[in-house]
Amino acid sequence: MKRLLDSQSLRALARGCAVLGAGGGGDPYLGLLQALQATEDFGPVSLVDLTELPDDSLIMPCGGIGAPTVSIEKIENGDEGNRLRDQLELLTRRRVGALMAAEIGGSNGMLPVAWAARMGLPLADADGMGRAFPEVPQVTMHLAGISPSPAVMTDERGNLAVFQTVSGQWMERLERAAAVEFGGAASSTEYTLTAAQAREATVRNSVSLAIRIGEAVINARTSPVDALIAEVSGHQLITGKIMDVERRTTSGFVRGSVVIEGLGADIGRLLRLELQNENLVALERGRVLASVPDLISILDNETAEAIATERIAYGQRVTVIAFACDPVWRTPEGIDLTGPRAFGYDFDYTPVEELADARD
Amino acid sequence: MKRLLDSQSLRALARGCAVLGAGGGGDPYLGLLQALQATEDFGPVSLVDLTELPDDSLIMPCGGIGAPTVSIEKIENGDEGNRLRDQLELLTRRRVGALMAAEIGGSNGMLPVAWAARMGLPLADADGMGRAFPEVPQVTMHLAGISPSPAVMTDERGNLAVFQTVSGQWMERLERAAAVEFGGAASSTEYTLTAAQAREATVRNSVSLAIRIGEAVINARTSPVDALIAEVSGHQLITGKIMDVERRTTSGFVRGSVVIEGLGADIGRLLRLELQNENLVALERGRVLASVPDLISILDNETAEAIATERIAYGQRVTVIAFACDPVWRTPEGIDLTGPRAFGYDFDYTPVEELADARD
Repeated sequence: MKRLLDSQSLRALARGCAVLGAGGGGDPYLGLLQALQATEDFGPVSLVDLTELPDDSLIMPCGGIGAPTVSIEKIENGDEGNRLRDQLELLTRRRVGALMAAEIGGSNGMLPVAWAARMGLPLADADGMGRAFPEVPQVTMHLAGISPSPAVMTDERGNLAVFQTVSGQWMERLERAAAVEFGGAASSTEYTLTAAQAREATVRNSVSLAIRIGEAVINARTSPVDALIAEVSGHQLITGKIMDVERRTTSGFVRGSVVIEGLGADIGRLLRLELQNENLVALERGRVLASVPDLISILDNETAEAIATERIAYGQRVTVIAFACDPVWRTPEGIDLTGPRAFGYDFDYTPVEELADARD
Repeated sequence: MKRLLDSQSLRALARGCAVLGAGGGGDPYLGLLQALQATEDFGPVSLVDLTELPDDSLIMPCGGIGAPTVSIEKIENGDEGNRLRDQLELLTRRRVGALMAAEIGGSNGMLPVAWAARMGLPLADADGMGRAFPEVPQVTMHLAGISPSPAVMTDERGNLAVFQTVSGQWMERLERAAAVEFGGAASSTEYTLTAAQAREATVRNSVSLAIRIGEAVINARTSPVDALIAEVSGHQLITGKIMDVERRTTSGFVRGSVVIEGLGADIGRLLRLELQNENLVALERGRVLASVPDLISILDNETAEAIATERIAYGQRVTVIAFACDPVWRTPEGIDLTGPRAFGYDFDYTPVEELADARD
């Protein structure tokens, strides 16, 4: 066992998840409250390395699905995780041995902690993205050829849906439609796998990474933003204030753009972020400064708190940073699944550090 | 066993299903072709009375869901019934003993014959409506308190969805959303029940009735329309030609209206039908001539073939008839579920024979 997730680690985890969310995955504050309460009621969750789980131990990747703008108003009732687990065990006729965040980013990195506490199950130190992405098949398990089926979805009312599809894209369509009917957000599990599979098919140690990022910020002696940039080897894209936000909640996603006006050393500059749940692309005068699958996060200038898509507001003083995604996303298959073209952009992916070098 | 459904009975059944469809349930011609082919390939289906099945025999109500306008262009691949059955058996851990049409109206009265032939299962002489209705919970099983869950849906690609919901209305929402994603139409089963339950919770002998209606038309010596009206104790609302059709395929339904201009004895009259998959209301100068849950069918003047909603076209010479629904729909609960107000109309239901008497 790596550690027990006490309230201090959970607070650090929440801050790290926000940064790794790249704007998406839902505001981790709500997930933190749920995790703290569940931990208080049922005892702390143990974080385990995938090597500590038996080869055939069944892992349930899970989290919320839908538009983060909805998820901050339409709260889980707490039973969702149990319902997903019970149904998955019924379908697979096997016991779930551990939970795992489908995406470590945002509230989706915290929710599995709350659910694991209620079930008395450990949390695997891994996830399916090393960040957050908007669509169901945008996970490392998909790259590894693991089936998304059976997927289970549930809502706070107790409705339950199971999908077995011919492709990941069909899973995305059906789950997204159900999420919209559920009111724009729901809870789900897909890509069930064994510990042996997970060792090859996930981003390892991402829970530990998120905690480390959070701790770096919390323990920063001078500038939290600088401490964070050092921790993630980040590139500072701009420091300024939010000048414009355009956000639409549509078809189970939030889409839109954010414009940041430079201040201080960056005065006169304008940075534009385009988003679909997550920050997808950072542009300056039509030039790409960073893009998916690399992470783009908006940080509060004072506290280095990462600001989720649904919380961005006019006038906030922010620093936008970008940093490298997990190497799995930089393979040709990874870029196909999550690169700029996967989101409809007509340009090729260039790693953020190369883009930064080109600017120097 | 009541009878083997040979090709002659199937042709009669298709004509009867069209009449009982009240415009909806899909064009039975496509269902007839599938039933004839399956019967030729796998042998004829036996039609059984519910009393002939053991009390605990599991009955699978099934058919198509979605917009009939789509169903005539997006054809089943034939495996849908087997897939629904296999999944239902997995979920209930019991064997299905017989199929039943969820609705006898339209193609949905024929599809279960095709599927039963492939599975070597009998068809129960009953259905959940005695006609066709557009929405999932508008079945007699719902009135009898039987759960719609688990419902199974599938498409021609092999995708599969299972829903367990907290209400019939939630089943309608989730299934409709999935049907839209599947392209506007899909195959489904809901309200699984035992033979003992079915004896109290279905419209009995509706397959036999549909065959009898079809035979009356086929064997008519003079006017097929008159023979049909006599068989169903129908009321002739108008004879004329289709003057206007307005039809939109939206949210998994077809909605719209049809205007019929009187000819011959009815010259100078205009009848307006409003529809949601089925013909819901017949109006003349704002006066209701017939409404749901009673059946309103548009017949070809020469052949008495009932014309499905999606086949209505300008210039067709037709006779519109209306006739009484099964008594279960005239109970207060039945009217709540399927009467005019259930479809958003602001008037109370009056039985078609009373409306006819009032006109005389």
